[in-house]
Amino acid sequence: MTTKKRVAVIGASGYAGAEVVRLISGHPHVILTLLTSRQYAGQPYDNIFPAFNERINLSLESFSLDDAVQKADIFFLALPHKASMNIAAPLINAGKKVIDLSADFRFKNQSMYENYYQPHAFPQLLKKAVYGLCEINHLEISKADLIGNPGCYPTSVLLPLIPLLKEKLIDLTGIIVDSKSGVSGAGRSPSLGTLFCEVNEGFKAYKVAEHRHEPEMNENLSLAAGENVQILFVPHLIPMTRGIVSTIYVRSQNDEQKLRACLQTAYENCPFVRVLTEGRLPNSAHVRGTNFCDIGIKFSKEKGVAVIVSTIDNLIKGAAGQAVQNMNIMLGFSESAGIDAMPFPV
Amino acid sequence: MTTKKRVAVIGASGYAGAEVVRLISGHPHVILTLLTSRQYAGQPYDNIFPAFNERINLSLESFSLDDAVQKADIFFLALPHKASMNIAAPLINAGKKVIDLSADFRFKNQSMYENYYQPHAFPQLLKKAVYGLCEINHLEISKADLIGNPGCYPTSVLLPLIPLLKEKLIDLTGIIVDSKSGVSGAGRSPSLGTLFCEVNEGFKAYKVAEHRHEPEMNENLSLAAGENVQILFVPHLIPMTRGIVSTIYVRSQNDEQKLRACLQTAYENCPFVRVLTEGRLPNSAHVRGTNFCDIGIKFSKEKGVAVIVSTIDNLIKGAAGQAVQNMNIMLGFSESAGIDAMPFPV
Amino acid sequence: MTTKKRVAVIGASGYAGAEVVRLISGHPHVILTLLTSRQYAGQPYDNIFPAFNERINLSLESFSLDDAVQKADIFFLALPHKASMNIAAPLINAGKKVIDLSADFRFKNQSMYENYYQPHAFPQLLKKAVYGLCEINHLEISKADLIGNPGCYPTSVLLPLIPLLKEKLIDLTGIIVDSKSGVSGAGRSPSLGTLFCEVNEGFKAYKVAEHRHEPEMNENLSLAAGENVQILFVPHLIPMTRGIVSTIYVRSQNDEQKLRACLQTAYENCPFVRVLTEGRLPNSAHVRGTNFCDIGIKFSKEKGVAVIVSTIDNLIKGAAGQAVQNMNIMLGFSESAGIDAMPFPV
Amino acid sequence: MTTKKRVAVIGASGYAGAEVVRLISGHPHVILTLLTSRQYAGQPYDNIFPAFNERINLSLESFSLDDAVQKADIFFLALPHKASMNIAAPLINAGKKVIDLSADFRFKNQSMYENYYQPHAFPQLLKKAVYGLCEINHLEISKADLIGNPGCYPTSVLLPLIPLLKEKLIDLTGIIVDSKSGVSGAGRSPSLGTLFCEVNEGFKAYKVAEHRHEPEMNENLSLAAGENVQILFVPHLIPMTRGIVSTIYVRSQNDEQKLRACLQTAYENCPFVRVLTEGRLPNSAHVRGTNFCDIGIKFSKEKGVAVIVSTIDNLIKGAAGQAVQNMNIMLGFSESAGIDAMPFPV
Repeated sequence: MTTKKRVAVIGASGYAGAEVVRLISGHPHVILTLLTSRQYAGQPYDNIFPAFNERINLSLESFSLDDAVQKADIFFLALPHKASMNIAAPLINAGKKVIDLSADFRFKNQSMYENYYQPHAFPQLLKKAVYGLCEINHLEISKADLIGNPGCYPTSVLLPLIPLLKEKLIDLTGIIVDSKSGVSGAGRSPSLGTLFCEVNEGFKAYKVAEHRHEPEMNENLSLAAGENVQILFVPHLIPMTRGIVSTIYVRSQNDEQKLRACLQTAYENCPFVRVLTEGRLPNSAHVRGTNFCDIGIKFSKEKGVAVIVSTIDNLIKGAAGQAVQNMNIMLGFSESAGIDAMPFPV
Repeated sequence: MTTKKRVAVIGASGYAGAEVVRLISGHPHVILTLLTSRQYAGQPYDNIFPAFNERINLSLESFSLDDAVQKADIFFLALPHKASMNIAAPLINAGKKVIDLSADFRFKNQSMYENYYQPHAFPQLLKKAVYGLCEINHLEISKADLIGNPGCYPTSVLLPLIPLLKEKLIDLTGIIVDSKSGVSGAGRSPSLGTLFCEVNEGFKAYKVAEHRHEPEMNENLSLAAGENVQILFVPHLIPMTRGIVSTIYVRSQNDEQKLRACLQTAYENCPFVRVLTEGRLPNSAHVRGTNFCDIGIKFSKEKGVAVIVSTIDNLIKGAAGQAVQNMNIMLGFSESAGIDAMPFPV
Repeated sequence: MTTKKRVAVIGASGYAGAEVVRLISGHPHVILTLLTSRQYAGQPYDNIFPAFNERINLSLESFSLDDAVQKADIFFLALPHKASMNIAAPLINAGKKVIDLSADFRFKNQSMYENYYQPHAFPQLLKKAVYGLCEINHLEISKADLIGNPGCYPTSVLLPLIPLLKEKLIDLTGIIVDSKSGVSGAGRSPSLGTLFCEVNEGFKAYKVAEHRHEPEMNENLSLAAGENVQILFVPHLIPMTRGIVSTIYVRSQNDEQKLRACLQTAYENCPFVRVLTEGRLPNSAHVRGTNFCDIGIKFSKEKGVAVIVSTIDNLIKGAAGQAVQNMNIMLGFSESAGIDAMPFPV
Repeated sequence: MTTKKRVAVIGASGYAGAEVVRLISGHPHVILTLLTSRQYAGQPYDNIFPAFNERINLSLESFSLDDAVQKADIFFLALPHKASMNIAAPLINAGKKVIDLSADFRFKNQSMYENYYQPHAFPQLLKKAVYGLCEINHLEISKADLIGNPGCYPTSVLLPLIPLLKEKLIDLTGIIVDSKSGVSGAGRSPSLGTLFCEVNEGFKAYKVAEHRHEPEMNENLSLAAGENVQILFVPHLIPMTRGIVSTIYVRSQNDEQKLRACLQTAYENCPFVRVLTEGRLPNSAHVRGTNFCDIGIKFSKEKGVAVIVSTIDNLIKGAAGQAVQNMNIMLGFSESAGIDAMPFPV
């Protein structure tokens, strides 16, 4: 029996970090050896997440490079943007595998990143990093050391659109993405806007046409199309914890069958993308707690517009689950190892 | 002191009917005298809605035309489609004022109604009926005896779009309406799809491009534009009780200021439409429990698309509140009598 | 026409303060003239609570005693404990009426207050203050200048128990109060524990047998009984915004009819207490948005225990609504002026 | 490699049945071979529960004894009371193992069952059946053919109380159980009371001191105590999908440490009972999606009352999870096989 690879979660006190911890704890081929947090260093992890009582026995530590390099082989970074790149760089230099859940390594185009975030301190690493959209970049991921794990909204939008763009089945202009997300996407730091009473029993749009996930989507869609694609992206907040639904409007000269067939073919060997049959539409509840992306299509012939509805659990396929999927691909495990839980009926 | 007009609510056991009852009970100029229900006839009304304990002392009765004609002057019909027209007709013949919350009298175009609903038994009444979108059809409403009270989704869509179409500030083609509704819009009849556990913590699209509110919107938008307008309408279900948010995508050669100014001018004397200032976007929570329609605009110059977000409480401005507003206009009361409650901060 | 009394809300940026603002804005006999907040001074009030757009035109100011004394006649203090007493004292000295929503003036027993809160700087005012449980202390309230507005949990517990204790219909020992509250009771300051994702889809007990409302209840129950009463109080958090339900277990030698009759008699002229008839039990949804306290009783003969269930909207009868009711009594208005809104059917 | 045992779920269209399906699908040692439903016979299972798309490929069948006996070795019955016993009996006669999730085989005392349910058609089977409270009746379960799977409320109450009663650490009289349950406990049949809008944002008690789980608890508590124990049981409905919290009030001459130590000892080898350390209290969110029962204790020395708070996921440890745990014990598998999923952090 070979020794199991050792996993560290850097920034384990947020929701995405905790989801990585949950998934890694149930993973058959790796073992959790290091959890760090600046804010909660020294505390047992189940003080911070009492759900993990008797299941996670580690305590949180401050991050120390020397110590980290000793303790783990694979690193999941669940840190704020900027903080992330400063930790990723020395880990890569030390020969570690790094899966970064921040935006720091998602962009090919450095200036695009810098327009929307901040100056990038490691542009050479940006080139080396692979955008970890597993179903699309599987081959590059399998050879990568550094993954920029996709944003939650982008995952829900790129999976349905990229195959259609590659096959030139839809128009490049006029794409509208009306997305809706549960509240966990906003993270675990206390803020007025995510208080229960501020969110409950309300629904709103926010950051209309100015969300930072828009350029991330545009870069990857353009790459798929081989031409410049600029979507219009409008996110909304749903009064629920987990789940993203993206309703995508694209013009097309083709028909529903052709669009669906394209996606079915593209994803026929992908365990986590379910292209729904005619007449079915996705519901975020059906993917909650799973790494699935469900995609439904309804074509309005009269308007020449396809309505594509996709849904993911934002913390899993939109963050931690896809991160583990990336690890599986990088390390040659079964792609679904540790992330193949059955969905809940309710 | 003059005698107060007497009000009947026919079909008082559903949510819209109960909201009419609530509003009429607090109305300064009318008095509630008759509540009917087939299913619950004979029962005290607060058996059905215990919230009304000690506030509503009436019992539900079976509908009888003779009795109804004796007991009330103004009739709110909160009945299923078809059932409604059969009761409205004799009441109108008996000289009563009728505000119908079903779709039976919303259409000018009889065949359009019949395509989406059923044969219409009283086409001559259809001609006589006024579409009760208060801010738009104020004058006709003031002279009407029979009101087709608008659907909830249409109210949220027509109020922002009609002034823009009248002023020819937006393109007539390519309008996309991505609407989201709370669950109360589905009514109070037990069904699997509206059970708590089926709705809670989930979000989905439904009836994509085939909802019966689409032709209702098209008819009224076309009327305003003076040309045929065909929108693409996609409704979604939000896990909350009250509220509709419509995110509307329209192409325009104009800019945000011009569009906002048009709406501000159109509604400057309307107590229930709040056109939000630059940078503000609506939240359904801010109109919950009120007759407001809040409208925000964000223009994407780059894409030439205006994103218009509107919100209403589907049971109030989208049903019972607008019905009472119609009554106020018909009877010459202050337009906001009985429906001017302050919004809740939370 | 007489000039309307002018009202100030000191600490208007929290939920209780905002509810006072909402209720005062719709009040027929007073006018809102001053809103203060340390944190948001200078901002239009509807920046903080956008629901009030076009309905409240005041801006928030820093509190200044001289200015406050000029601008208002009646003061609602919605401040943290301790901060409150330091503002109440000079206002009382200036001849103003003060209704304090904090705990600072709720206790007769100074050392009890000091055990659970902090040293009291104005013990002589503590003696002068009246505990504003309207239905019980109506007469004293009508003569008072300074009101200690009751806590939310205590209101839900004292209203059902005080008449039973006064009439000696229940045992003084062994009273157990199992209360459940919506999240708005925890206030509007961002904190981990009240984030949407931390509260949603979960239920928990907290501060078991050590909540500061326990001594407040004990003092008032003992006063009613004429003997020392010490309840066991266990609060819980419900994943909803508004509402408290208290399930109270008391031993009694009497029967259900006798207990119910006692409460019915005690509250027969009280517009806001609804003693439910046999077989009915309260639901917090039926009092949401209202100043009602609903009380139901089920007696287990076999065990000799009466189960009394009461419910209020914690922000209204448990805070702002009762505060306005106190003002109405102090100023000789109709007791229900401005707080008699109909409940919602759903 | 040995052949896997084959599992049938009879009555697979409800929530408990669907949870059994979910858990069995992920179970390492058994295989799902038959799903039945009267209402949905002939339909693919993922038509009824779309979450199972691509994960469950079986269709629902009508129940036929001959067919069932051919197709499966172990039977989970998720049927209404009465329907259950009529199917269990012939299956037992055919030599099958049966785990019944209804109340039909939970009682030792036939007349107690008949008082609260209906006449029992198979009293001899009642004697043979074992009450499947796994941690308590482990040995009998390991030898049983027929299991009466415990009710959800009883599971949450019996696990904390039975060891304390066995060790005579608490008083037998005056036990009060104030329980709160999520809505899924009410099942999947459409009814007014479980509609989203009727439940959302409300909290209520129901069936006070007359719920059918009370005698089930009394029988098992009395058995543990060796004397007659009669609790007072008051259930409430929480506006959430999954989870039960029971707050239990017991008088005791002992102290918190002694009570906690008793439970820790009783459950030290039980993977699914977590006795929380001093100062910690359970939250239903921490056990959601798991087979855990979390128990916290706070002793009020002054009152001589221990407040014991326990929580389970009502569909898992309160139904399907415990049913699978029973199967594991009956068949000699690891007790946690297939039901050891990590809890969610949020």
